[in-house]
Amino acid sequence: MLDKNYLSLKESIKLLLEHVEFASLPFELIPIEVAYNRITYEDIYAPENLPGFRRSTVDGFAVRSQDTFGAKETMPAYLTVKGHIPMGKAPNFSLGQGEAAEIGTGGMLPDGADAVIMLEHVNIISPDLIEVLRPVGPGENVIFEDEDIRKGELVIPKGRKLKPQDIGALAGLGIAEIKVVKKPTVAIILTGDEIIPHTEKTIPGKVRDINSFVLAGLIDEAGGVPLKMGIVKDSYKDIKALVDRAYSSADVILITGGTSAGIKDMTAQIINELGKPGIIFHGVSIKPGKPIIAGVCNKKPVFGLPGHPVAVYICFELFVKPVLEKMLGITDKFYKTKIKAKLTKSIFSQAGRTDFIRVSLEEKNGDLWADPLLSKSGLIMTLVKAKGILCIPEDLLGFEKNEEVEVEVI
Amino acid sequence: MLDKNYLSLKESIKLLLEHVEFASLPFELIPIEVAYNRITYEDIYAPENLPGFRRSTVDGFAVRSQDTFGAKETMPAYLTVKGHIPMGKAPNFSLGQGEAAEIGTGGMLPDGADAVIMLEHVNIISPDLIEVLRPVGPGENVIFEDEDIRKGELVIPKGRKLKPQDIGALAGLGIAEIKVVKKPTVAIILTGDEIIPHTEKTIPGKVRDINSFVLAGLIDEAGGVPLKMGIVKDSYKDIKALVDRAYSSADVILITGGTSAGIKDMTAQIINELGKPGIIFHGVSIKPGKPIIAGVCNKKPVFGLPGHPVAVYICFELFVKPVLEKMLGITDKFYKTKIKAKLTKSIFSQAGRTDFIRVSLEEKNGDLWADPLLSKSGLIMTLVKAKGILCIPEDLLGFEKNEEVEVEVI
Repeated sequence: MLDKNYLSLKESIKLLLEHVEFASLPFELIPIEVAYNRITYEDIYAPENLPGFRRSTVDGFAVRSQDTFGAKETMPAYLTVKGHIPMGKAPNFSLGQGEAAEIGTGGMLPDGADAVIMLEHVNIISPDLIEVLRPVGPGENVIFEDEDIRKGELVIPKGRKLKPQDIGALAGLGIAEIKVVKKPTVAIILTGDEIIPHTEKTIPGKVRDINSFVLAGLIDEAGGVPLKMGIVKDSYKDIKALVDRAYSSADVILITGGTSAGIKDMTAQIINELGKPGIIFHGVSIKPGKPIIAGVCNKKPVFGLPGHPVAVYICFELFVKPVLEKMLGITDKFYKTKIKAKLTKSIFSQAGRTDFIRVSLEEKNGDLWADPLLSKSGLIMTLVKAKGILCIPEDLLGFEKNEEVEVEVI
Repeated sequence: MLDKNYLSLKESIKLLLEHVEFASLPFELIPIEVAYNRITYEDIYAPENLPGFRRSTVDGFAVRSQDTFGAKETMPAYLTVKGHIPMGKAPNFSLGQGEAAEIGTGGMLPDGADAVIMLEHVNIISPDLIEVLRPVGPGENVIFEDEDIRKGELVIPKGRKLKPQDIGALAGLGIAEIKVVKKPTVAIILTGDEIIPHTEKTIPGKVRDINSFVLAGLIDEAGGVPLKMGIVKDSYKDIKALVDRAYSSADVILITGGTSAGIKDMTAQIINELGKPGIIFHGVSIKPGKPIIAGVCNKKPVFGLPGHPVAVYICFELFVKPVLEKMLGITDKFYKTKIKAKLTKSIFSQAGRTDFIRVSLEEKNGDLWADPLLSKSGLIMTLVKAKGILCIPEDLLGFEKNEEVEVEVI
């Protein structure tokens, strides 16, 4: 336990992701129709070739390429049309020397044929006879039977977040069900005597729950299932009881709030009592989000998140999301949407601290401008108005007005 | 109708999005819990102030700021502690001259107080008496009652795709239900005598449906609801019957396939018969996707998409998605995830044509390399392997090996 040690952001992430073992998630077998955005549990290999037979990529005539060698407009090759190949059917004949067969795009080549000459390069003399006006090479305008996917080939690797085209490829191979990683359930526990449900009328002193709504959306986007455990008073007994319940039903536990003086230590104590090793770090040199607690109890991640909505958002993106991705076994590298913009005003940070500044983005006179949305505290509206987040790394003291910066689009 | 006119990409998009009127979508009233990623139907204004009362942003003592003016370590100000403010309660006293009250982060300021002095800047002499070691200004460490959101303020504009933080702000304001734009239903009709369902065994000549799986995922991501209408034979009567059924139940109709020679004209004829104005354009100078048909029938968009999966993907992104976004009334500007990479090999295009090249992305020796995945035709595996799409604009003839290009990450 490195309580109050105020790690740097890099150190804290490294500590959490490299030195801690998390429980692995089981698989579930699901139909591909509902597998979009799910994570593959194992490598998926092709059970057969795709397309499985030789197909034409154009409308024209299937031919033996050697019969067209030397053909030109002034000296065409004459071929006998043996028949028409209906779409979706295997041809019931093969081509001999000097023979051709009418074929459509996607049609199956007859035995004997090794190429397709496009309609545009043919004169149809009669239903039985064509003039070929140019040569075609072997394989020209043909997809071979294993050209899209070869039997036994790795189609989708383990740890892939499935895109529409991946599901399409599985459908093409006749793979109707696949193993995906079960979604981790993420418990959300709200602490605070001042918090009331969003459906209640406010009275002076009380504020409605914002954080469970921010977190539920972020958890879903990260591939987890949010479990709203409810609001609990600032008491050791009540919080412990709810954390214990969450521990038995969820894969990850988030305890938010605990902004009053005594509660921070309560949360820390409860996490340490829950299982080994307990707290990994308590406090990171970031703004907002400094008081974050990260713990692992019997391989189950438990986070104590600060109470401000913006701090909750930043801490989720920095710490909880990478943990969920590691548990899900995601191997894809995702690139964040970043954009260059000029700063409307100078912003400052402290040495050694990583700051995350909400900015709006606006085009003016052909330039894109990032306008820092500064406020006293983590007000939710600064996040609603923000189009991006600007990071001031720990080794910089800030950025100057008019400086070009790179903003992560949110 | 501009049949066979081969518009440029820019012209075709402009024609479709600027010169055609689409039916507008109705609203539905839904709980905010299920409103993530939905599109707001109207501007949403704050019914009340947030937080609604003056809150402390720190742990410390609520004070009258003028009582602290001039205070320093060598000459502290002495204040009488009138009481403790419990979290979540309105104080049952007000502060007079020389008085202070213990307060936690998020606690409600008593009348009379206008600032909070942090615990660190106070010596607690006795439960009733503190030494204040530095002055605080009016409003210091306080969030005012309307500082996050002011009553009557525009919180979320019409046409916003709702993010977790937006839902959080609505919850904080006690807005439990909102009007969102009803999701457009998008019918998928697959034509082709060679197409069989993905659950069937292949036989020579037949291929399984890939496109409906690619399209269903893309439609969902774009905010629509896919309606799989099934596979239909290449016959005017059968296609027309299914298009008529789709027309009566869907907001947008996609007809894919029709790769055989005769079917293209059938699809065009059916779209023109469905309603006015009918076909907007037939054929665009792009690769892949050239034979795309876009039509509007009585304000309902109808597309004839090429049969190759990659062409289907590109045509959806270029034409169908922007139409769905326009119908949904999305006003947010989205930035695409783009990344700079060096090309592993030269690629070429034709003047006047816009090409979309699938590329893989790989880091090597500190550089990011884009490797074009070239193939004869629109094979699904090139899209599965692709990490990005590189566009060769119509006014360029290609890019050279080792040239730095900008790739859209997919």
